[in-house]
Amino acid sequence: MAAPAKPTRIGLAGLAVMGQNLALNIAEKGFPISVYNRTSSKVDETVERAKAEGDLPLYGFHDPESFVQSIQKPRVIIMLVKAGAPVDQTIKTLSVYLEKGDCIIDGGNEWYENTERREKSMAELGLLYLGMGVSGGEEGARNGPSLMPGGSFEAFKHIEDILIKVAAQVPDSGPCVTYIGKGGSGNFVKMIHNGIEYGDMQLIAEAYDVLRTVGKLSNEELHQVFSEWNKGELLSFLIEITADIFSIKDDKADGYLVDKVLDKTGMKGTGKWTVQQAADLSVAAPTIASSLDARFLSGLKEERVEAAKVFGSGLSNVEVDKAKLIDDVRQALYASKICSYAQGMNLIRAKSIEKGWDLKLGELARIWKGGCIIRAVFLDRIKRAYDRNPELANLLVDPEFAKEIVERQSAWRRVVCLAINSGISTPGMSSSLAYFDSYRRERLPANLVQAQRDYFGAHTYERTDTEGSFHTEWFKIAKQLKN
Amino acid sequence: MAAPAKPTRIGLAGLAVMGQNLALNIAEKGFPISVYNRTSSKVDETVERAKAEGDLPLYGFHDPESFVQSIQKPRVIIMLVKAGAPVDQTIKTLSVYLEKGDCIIDGGNEWYENTERREKSMAELGLLYLGMGVSGGEEGARNGPSLMPGGSFEAFKHIEDILIKVAAQVPDSGPCVTYIGKGGSGNFVKMIHNGIEYGDMQLIAEAYDVLRTVGKLSNEELHQVFSEWNKGELLSFLIEITADIFSIKDDKADGYLVDKVLDKTGMKGTGKWTVQQAADLSVAAPTIASSLDARFLSGLKEERVEAAKVFGSGLSNVEVDKAKLIDDVRQALYASKICSYAQGMNLIRAKSIEKGWDLKLGELARIWKGGCIIRAVFLDRIKRAYDRNPELANLLVDPEFAKEIVERQSAWRRVVCLAINSGISTPGMSSSLAYFDSYRRERLPANLVQAQRDYFGAHTYERTDTEGSFHTEWFKIAKQLKN
Repeated sequence: MAAPAKPTRIGLAGLAVMGQNLALNIAEKGFPISVYNRTSSKVDETVERAKAEGDLPLYGFHDPESFVQSIQKPRVIIMLVKAGAPVDQTIKTLSVYLEKGDCIIDGGNEWYENTERREKSMAELGLLYLGMGVSGGEEGARNGPSLMPGGSFEAFKHIEDILIKVAAQVPDSGPCVTYIGKGGSGNFVKMIHNGIEYGDMQLIAEAYDVLRTVGKLSNEELHQVFSEWNKGELLSFLIEITADIFSIKDDKADGYLVDKVLDKTGMKGTGKWTVQQAADLSVAAPTIASSLDARFLSGLKEERVEAAKVFGSGLSNVEVDKAKLIDDVRQALYASKICSYAQGMNLIRAKSIEKGWDLKLGELARIWKGGCIIRAVFLDRIKRAYDRNPELANLLVDPEFAKEIVERQSAWRRVVCLAINSGISTPGMSSSLAYFDSYRRERLPANLVQAQRDYFGAHTYERTDTEGSFHTEWFKIAKQLKN
Repeated sequence: MAAPAKPTRIGLAGLAVMGQNLALNIAEKGFPISVYNRTSSKVDETVERAKAEGDLPLYGFHDPESFVQSIQKPRVIIMLVKAGAPVDQTIKTLSVYLEKGDCIIDGGNEWYENTERREKSMAELGLLYLGMGVSGGEEGARNGPSLMPGGSFEAFKHIEDILIKVAAQVPDSGPCVTYIGKGGSGNFVKMIHNGIEYGDMQLIAEAYDVLRTVGKLSNEELHQVFSEWNKGELLSFLIEITADIFSIKDDKADGYLVDKVLDKTGMKGTGKWTVQQAADLSVAAPTIASSLDARFLSGLKEERVEAAKVFGSGLSNVEVDKAKLIDDVRQALYASKICSYAQGMNLIRAKSIEKGWDLKLGELARIWKGGCIIRAVFLDRIKRAYDRNPELANLLVDPEFAKEIVERQSAWRRVVCLAINSGISTPGMSSSLAYFDSYRRERLPANLVQAQRDYFGAHTYERTDTEGSFHTEWFKIAKQLKN
């Protein structure tokens, strides 16, 4: 294997799909890179690809020591290995050869507290540490991902020039990278990005379900509808790939491939963590939670088949005007999407306040405009909403979004009711609508719940007309009234 | 203070509301009891109450040593102090004076893992430990709570006779106590009980909201409706106290007290934990999650007031037939309740499998029939469902419940759609309905989500028509099709 003539600029350890592609991307941007993997065949494979893709300045190493020694000081090494124990293992392997001032960057979907723990123990060795969210899948990693680096600002400064070139570039708004903040903030923001991604995917699936099941649209029609939607307010990577999916025929049998895909959705940890963090932070995130639940329920395929036998597969066959339905579903999808992003952004803000991270929500929306899975024209609207008012309590009340919701709420309500009357579940759309209807409600029935709590648990209550904390002997009074 | 002539049968440390009442209950059942509290005024207060309530055999101690020494060996001491650090502190204080074979019981709402940690470290000292859920509030503790002891079976055997007498007694189904299982199972089951309680309270609040806001029912009418409901399938403690609440006039101003209670609901940790555990266990629990979210959103009173100005307070004024609406809402409430309990029971089963606790779902339903906050005639139906089939995958498909849901589903759908069209959120009822409609669906749109995941992340998919794991180069094929 060719050795570099002089020290390389950066190193990358962990050459699975994401690692290989990010390494090639970095090399292609003109930064000589050393790469290493525990299984050395992956090293050779990456070196081969670098050669094939234009003799890129990428150098492979089979042992960690010569890998580390090949990098210019202060060294920066990006790790792309599985979250958890493999990350600790890789740090252990590499840090033996690292020197004070060197830096490790974890580019995986790591739990933010693990990053904070590692940053601390690395600091004790005089080493710097970053937890960097990387979104965009294989294709993004190769050609421009969205990057969310958090942790040591000094470390970020060492490689800012690289990240700016490697990230996706969006005309008029720059490279999709920014220094997120201290500690585990990069991982946290990436986690919420993934939670939002869950929400987007579920909402699209529900739109598909209503159009297919109630509207009786064929895959060809669905392909056209989603292609059309991708020209307007819904323009986004996920809508684009959805349109693509409906165009693909099965290569094993007649018909379209999407119809042969089993309705069981896998998942990794980030959606779960998002929902758990929402509970911890006392932030309602029902759209994201319902998409996680939908994945859980999708997994119960055998139970569902049995339950379908008990209850039948649906209700009445509703007659619908196709064109009107398509237009309604588009609006319902868009309005629900606003709710989902409002939840995600509020989760980030709540955590930022808790941790003192001082995260800039508008800037996060900006770096999600390209490279990542949730990239969409929609994110520019979010950026502008926070530009208008960085203290915005909720995206829903931004004047532009509020106007859009008001215009779409009739269609939104029609779609959810149509689904309900057709026996089709739209948990994402209906929980989004309930979120909206709760948030915009001056007086919720929570007074009754609090009265109940005071009745059986003496938890006290506040009053609408005067300050203070009150307790009533509900039971005694009610007993007197009965006698 | 009078000293006991001979050692007492049991001790209780921590004399806040729950502790005082449980101690009096134990004494009243004929078991001489020693009590202790760090703040000694609480001790004197409890001793006074014991005297006033019939010279009960209760003995107060101002120092932990004489408290512990006063109890017969092997000693059993129930702690009722705040979960977390105060529990550790109390254990530390007491264990100095305890001897091998003695036992401590934590009766608080403790996180189950803390109980497991403590059980282990107590075992190292030769001491026994139980984590015992106690439900029923002040009144239940005094007159008969539902008790959920888990941990050392040997310790349970030491006080089984006491617990059986102290627990609520339900005709035909016995005392509301059973040995739950090993480790932290008692705390876990109590946590889920509380999660279910959140769901029940939220569903009742939604029923109230629809009847009040859409049906324009007065508090007098609401009192009558809930009193009526409490004679039928909904007969339960929470419906009963709800009826009571609507009967109580404000003593500070004109009108009914419930209208003056601020619509902000407080909470403790158990609802949050339930939702987080659901995510961990991959069990969908949307009804419980939506009640937690409703509490979060209730807390944003100021934001809601502002949002109401932006969006207006509601939509159209729908004309409804009051009697029909009341009947529909009752059915919607009942059907939603089934979904909520199905979720809670499945959470318990999933955890039981994970931990090897071998919990008996029917037996849990039995001990919830009396004493606790969710006590209801409904729980007997659940018990019978698990008696019929202990392996029941989901309460929804039990023949009796399935029949009840089928009979109620039209009303259920009408109520949710009516609420949606009136701009009233019913997150609990609508997420329950979505849960039902997802669970009974043979084919969900999860195929699209999995296709998307395979498209951008090469996560692979299964097929409906053949075994195995597949990956498609969606992007390449779609690109070819476009050219």
